[in-house]
Amino acid sequence: MSGIEELPLRPELRGRTPYGAPQVPATHRLNTNENPHPLPAELLADLGAALGSAALELNRYPDRDAVALRTDLAVYLSRTSGTQVVPEQVWAANGSNEVLQQILQAFGGAGRTALGFTPSYSMHPIISAGTGTAWVDGHRRADFTIDAAAAAEQIREVDPAVVFVTSPNNPTGTAVALETIEALYAATTGVLVVDEAYTEFARTGTASALTLLPGRPRLIVSRTMSKAFGMAGLRLGYLAADPAVVDALQLVRLPYHLSSLTQAAARTALAHTDALLATVDAVKAQRDRIVDALPALGLTSVPSDANFVLFGHFADAPAAWQALLDRGVLVRDVGLPGWLRVTAGTTAETDAFLTALGEIAPDHRTTLGD
Amino acid sequence: MSGIEELPLRPELRGRTPYGAPQVPATHRLNTNENPHPLPAELLADLGAALGSAALELNRYPDRDAVALRTDLAVYLSRTSGTQVVPEQVWAANGSNEVLQQILQAFGGAGRTALGFTPSYSMHPIISAGTGTAWVDGHRRADFTIDAAAAAEQIREVDPAVVFVTSPNNPTGTAVALETIEALYAATTGVLVVDEAYTEFARTGTASALTLLPGRPRLIVSRTMSKAFGMAGLRLGYLAADPAVVDALQLVRLPYHLSSLTQAAARTALAHTDALLATVDAVKAQRDRIVDALPALGLTSVPSDANFVLFGHFADAPAAWQALLDRGVLVRDVGLPGWLRVTAGTTAETDAFLTALGEIAPDHRTTLGD
Repeated sequence: MSGIEELPLRPELRGRTPYGAPQVPATHRLNTNENPHPLPAELLADLGAALGSAALELNRYPDRDAVALRTDLAVYLSRTSGTQVVPEQVWAANGSNEVLQQILQAFGGAGRTALGFTPSYSMHPIISAGTGTAWVDGHRRADFTIDAAAAAEQIREVDPAVVFVTSPNNPTGTAVALETIEALYAATTGVLVVDEAYTEFARTGTASALTLLPGRPRLIVSRTMSKAFGMAGLRLGYLAADPAVVDALQLVRLPYHLSSLTQAAARTALAHTDALLATVDAVKAQRDRIVDALPALGLTSVPSDANFVLFGHFADAPAAWQALLDRGVLVRDVGLPGWLRVTAGTTAETDAFLTALGEIAPDHRTTLGD
Repeated sequence: MSGIEELPLRPELRGRTPYGAPQVPATHRLNTNENPHPLPAELLADLGAALGSAALELNRYPDRDAVALRTDLAVYLSRTSGTQVVPEQVWAANGSNEVLQQILQAFGGAGRTALGFTPSYSMHPIISAGTGTAWVDGHRRADFTIDAAAAAEQIREVDPAVVFVTSPNNPTGTAVALETIEALYAATTGVLVVDEAYTEFARTGTASALTLLPGRPRLIVSRTMSKAFGMAGLRLGYLAADPAVVDALQLVRLPYHLSSLTQAAARTALAHTDALLATVDAVKAQRDRIVDALPALGLTSVPSDANFVLFGHFADAPAAWQALLDRGVLVRDVGLPGWLRVTAGTTAETDAFLTALGEIAPDHRTTLGD
């Protein structure tokens, strides 16, 4: 046995630690934005049948191009976005992380730069680094919104090969206006990735960037089944874009990357879309309940279109995180001074969270600038 | 809709086509080295139960570190290789392709070089390219064996960060002697990856490179459940190495890369190892039957430790490939002048192959140098 420092590791990896939320035992796990609602019984029954059927041919390689699954995803996107999406525009992989990695392999990489508006999904810079792509932090206003004109100017200066914008943004929660996305697209010569992992939770009237796809061949909209679909364990991410983008990704995808089981389970879940998305309204109600309860506790939040709420302000966010954990509630310290992030889940989880928060707020809250 | 040439694709990807065996309809598909034997009934029953149980928690993220699966894989490797392997030495991903990609992300990448002894598994240079790693073809003798001294000298000259050696080699079929692997390891300052995808089919007396792991922290042995285990649709590749190598791969792995279904199905298959590997002897018998039948047809083969046979010589291998396909038998043209590769499968498949080959051999065979 030797130490990692004795291995010929790439120099930029030295001293790094693996990404991931701390896996801490807690009664209420509100730290990774999972959907706490169990899968519907009729879906579980159909999953059993579909997986059993797929198992009969597990000795054969899966469909390399996942055509049937991409067709089902196109139907879902067309039905919910108000814009027509065809299977040739859709690509899927093992979680949106792999989708994003393939985008960076095709359009980023050594000698190229990616830009994203931090704070945002922390995997964007990490996956960029994993593909040798340089990273530049994009600017946000103090309230975490994006100033479209300033962002477009920064993009023209940096000239990144890949631009990320997360809408609704994680960890802050707010959706990005389509006008802003249009401005970012117009400013870049690279590809613009709109990461819509949480879009199904957006407040009424929030349009998807899917509606911007026609006429924008460098626009990519990524999605996941981990959040609103409640299938985090399945690892199914996907995207919609111009068919030429899908052609490009097929040059870098690992052949047979999506297992037969993944394809079968995802298709079965999509056949139960309405039942699965029925939990979305319940989750949104809990999110709004959290938002509404905060002022009475002397706390505030960032407007949320997601299944989580960024809340504060705390004099010492890590101390507030520990105080909540001491009461059995695990939230996420996303490294933003004064703020913590909580997942909106079941009524019981919200009860437990708000009770614990009520107990710790007097000792930990502060006002901005304190 | 636009064309791929209008996208800001990385320049080295321009003009490339996606990797993959041609998906051609044929009665007998002997082109991708799948195991044609159906999974045992008792395994199918247990798979149904295990997947149904995993589905109950699909709304939660999977175990990020796949500890239980890595433990089961360590038990399998320890039991079959005669060397002790602990879970901390094992890492798993979505097919050995993803395992190899993670190795290249950690130890290869821009400004670094990988070297492999071609002809070999064609994904090695492709995954190297996908991670920005330069590629150098290592030399083989005309009979496709590796000259250890010459190979070591080439490694010292090129000084690659990653060296690949496939044993048994694909597409030629022959296992590499441990003395050769020891010599390659001693010659390199980088990591040495021994790709043992087909090792369970090796002829009696062939030792695994797992036995070389102690004291060699830069040695990595990769494996797959796609071949001998007959689980190509599952996409489960894995490796054994020094625990520090596993630590390094965790810096580049995408979090939650292995779905709950994949982990559950792989563990269930490993619980049925003996039943699954019972088909290995049957496949080896068909392989040896093919090898033994060739001389009477005026043909020859490369010695095979795998579930396939590289056979020839043909005046025009693509024409011979087409002639076999015209008779319902799909084999693989691996791009080696004069040679074709056939998967050893069931008795009926071998019957069909040998019948078709007997018909086309008179018109297509040649002798070396013709």
